[in-house]
Amino acid sequence: MGLTLVEAVKGIEPSSEVWRQKAIKHLNNLAIPRGSLGQLLSLAEQLASIKQTLTPSVSRKTVVTMAGDHGVVAEGVSAFPQEVTLQMVGNFVAGGAAINVLAEMVGTQVLVVDMGIAADMNDLVKAGKILSRKVDYGTQNMSRGPAMTREQAIQGLEAGINLAGDLVREGVEILATGDMGIGNTTPSSAILAVFSGLSVQDVTGRGTGIDDAALKNKVRVIQQALDINKPDAKDPVDVLAKVGGFEIAGIAGLILGAAYYKVPVVVDGFISTAGALLAKELAPCSLDYMIAAHQSMEYGHQFMLKELGLKPILNLDLRLGEGTGAALAMTIVEASTRVISKILTFEDAGVSRDPCRDAMVNE
Amino acid sequence: MGLTLVEAVKGIEPSSEVWRQKAIKHLNNLAIPRGSLGQLLSLAEQLASIKQTLTPSVSRKTVVTMAGDHGVVAEGVSAFPQEVTLQMVGNFVAGGAAINVLAEMVGTQVLVVDMGIAADMNDLVKAGKILSRKVDYGTQNMSRGPAMTREQAIQGLEAGINLAGDLVREGVEILATGDMGIGNTTPSSAILAVFSGLSVQDVTGRGTGIDDAALKNKVRVIQQALDINKPDAKDPVDVLAKVGGFEIAGIAGLILGAAYYKVPVVVDGFISTAGALLAKELAPCSLDYMIAAHQSMEYGHQFMLKELGLKPILNLDLRLGEGTGAALAMTIVEASTRVISKILTFEDAGVSRDPCRDAMVNE
Repeated sequence: MGLTLVEAVKGIEPSSEVWRQKAIKHLNNLAIPRGSLGQLLSLAEQLASIKQTLTPSVSRKTVVTMAGDHGVVAEGVSAFPQEVTLQMVGNFVAGGAAINVLAEMVGTQVLVVDMGIAADMNDLVKAGKILSRKVDYGTQNMSRGPAMTREQAIQGLEAGINLAGDLVREGVEILATGDMGIGNTTPSSAILAVFSGLSVQDVTGRGTGIDDAALKNKVRVIQQALDINKPDAKDPVDVLAKVGGFEIAGIAGLILGAAYYKVPVVVDGFISTAGALLAKELAPCSLDYMIAAHQSMEYGHQFMLKELGLKPILNLDLRLGEGTGAALAMTIVEASTRVISKILTFEDAGVSRDPCRDAMVNE
Repeated sequence: MGLTLVEAVKGIEPSSEVWRQKAIKHLNNLAIPRGSLGQLLSLAEQLASIKQTLTPSVSRKTVVTMAGDHGVVAEGVSAFPQEVTLQMVGNFVAGGAAINVLAEMVGTQVLVVDMGIAADMNDLVKAGKILSRKVDYGTQNMSRGPAMTREQAIQGLEAGINLAGDLVREGVEILATGDMGIGNTTPSSAILAVFSGLSVQDVTGRGTGIDDAALKNKVRVIQQALDINKPDAKDPVDVLAKVGGFEIAGIAGLILGAAYYKVPVVVDGFISTAGALLAKELAPCSLDYMIAAHQSMEYGHQFMLKELGLKPILNLDLRLGEGTGAALAMTIVEASTRVISKILTFEDAGVSRDPCRDAMVNE
């Protein structure tokens, strides 16, 4: 039996301040001008604090790409037809998608999870090509009523939490999130609007590339979903159930699970960060375990990162999803572990310090 | 016998527009929303255009870390004493410096070149640990007269050009620049001031970490160097000779050589980009072969990138030099080669296109 949502949320602890301080002390001693490796140093601090060691390892990596469909695509919110979710999962399994290509380079496995694709995936599941945590065959149309039931939302969250547990028990040292789901910028914008209080217009972008008329329609649809469902910002499960998605539930759960099991989790772009918002609202300390992969081109993403107070690692104008930005960012995270583990200190390297600052020359 | 500077500059051709167009056509056909891989796509275009193929390879990498000393450190422009240049080269050779640690992760070799260290390096040269292209034992104090002679400037440039040639003949597919030289943000700021027309105050930063008083002094010293030497912005060799450095000459030469031999060159931070400014002034088409690794924390770097019109790959608040930012950025450049070579097209993947945009569904 796995953890329940309540057990997970109650069990999430902050990362170690003691180890953060030890890391800062060590990093200030490296034979480099103090602070000159910028964000690599802050990442190294975070990893030391999470893993409670000065030699954190993130060699064993997994990108979990959560897939699901969205009833709201009936409203014309996406440039692509719904069957592309299924087709792209086929592409992931065949190894020809962007996430496969980047993951191979980075040295991370990719685990594709059916959280709620609107199609029978039994053949791929039986063949061991994808994992099934299917909650349902796509969400309901959130512009007409709740996207899912409260029970389904909890089921999706717990699936993510316990999947993180399974992976950590297998030895995975760092997780990353990814998504596939035609239409899923629509629930993501809705979630952002609820938690940030920003207007729907401010948080809604073009997703895979809709035109002006379709964007106007998308804003109208999201506003209608909020008006009809009245999600309660104080109740994150209610928000997820009314205007979320199954893959977003899985992503939020995976992040909570990473925090519970004390492993870092690299959060991909707009859809993944919607999951991160939910995770933070459910368990604020889960933030300690999150690493923002990149600044997405999807317009609202900047507001999500601001809500979370996270600085993205990359800013490459990506807006693909799948976990592509997270896979790339993992190389920078890995670099930070090498910085803390392997660069020599002034003493070990026999290099003179800045004499003004440190009043000490090793000669 | 190697190339002369004039031969190299005259021989630099623009990268191929034909192959750029072929690349754009292919990239628009990948089974991703059009443009959704952002800067990875523009890098892939650039590499295809440089290498004249849709399957460019950058597997065989070399970071060339050029080292030199600066007479101007006598004016108190750096937080560190001059002998740190020598000590850090020792650290590079021992493998414990940041550049070694990051290069190992990225899978690039690091070549350390003595362009003008103010010490006898014969033991390390004979042991094959570093390469000697020494022009002199440090530059002269540029605040009192020219940093070097015109002949020395040309010697440094040609050393870099022909080193690029040697490496390309050995099979290296991508070059990156790096620097080590206590005091070298001072000539770099001077070079930027000359070419940009910006005031010395605007382009001068804290380097390895000087305080307010030392910064004020550094601005004064650079202004004095410009006033005394009157470098001619229309004559890049004159600028290099009067207010440059030997490692900066080597870097500028390496970039010119990369362009001449048609391989991409990843330009590191502030000092390397000063070299890139010189290369561009000498041969404007060399820009086609440059890739800006990162946005350095050193204040003036933003103006250098603006002068060159280059968008940096990373923005991690680095300000270390050595080639560290370039080594890290090489992973993103490599990712772009995989994007163009390996991601399936809509047709190959059997994925439906955006029907509005492309009027075509493959089903």
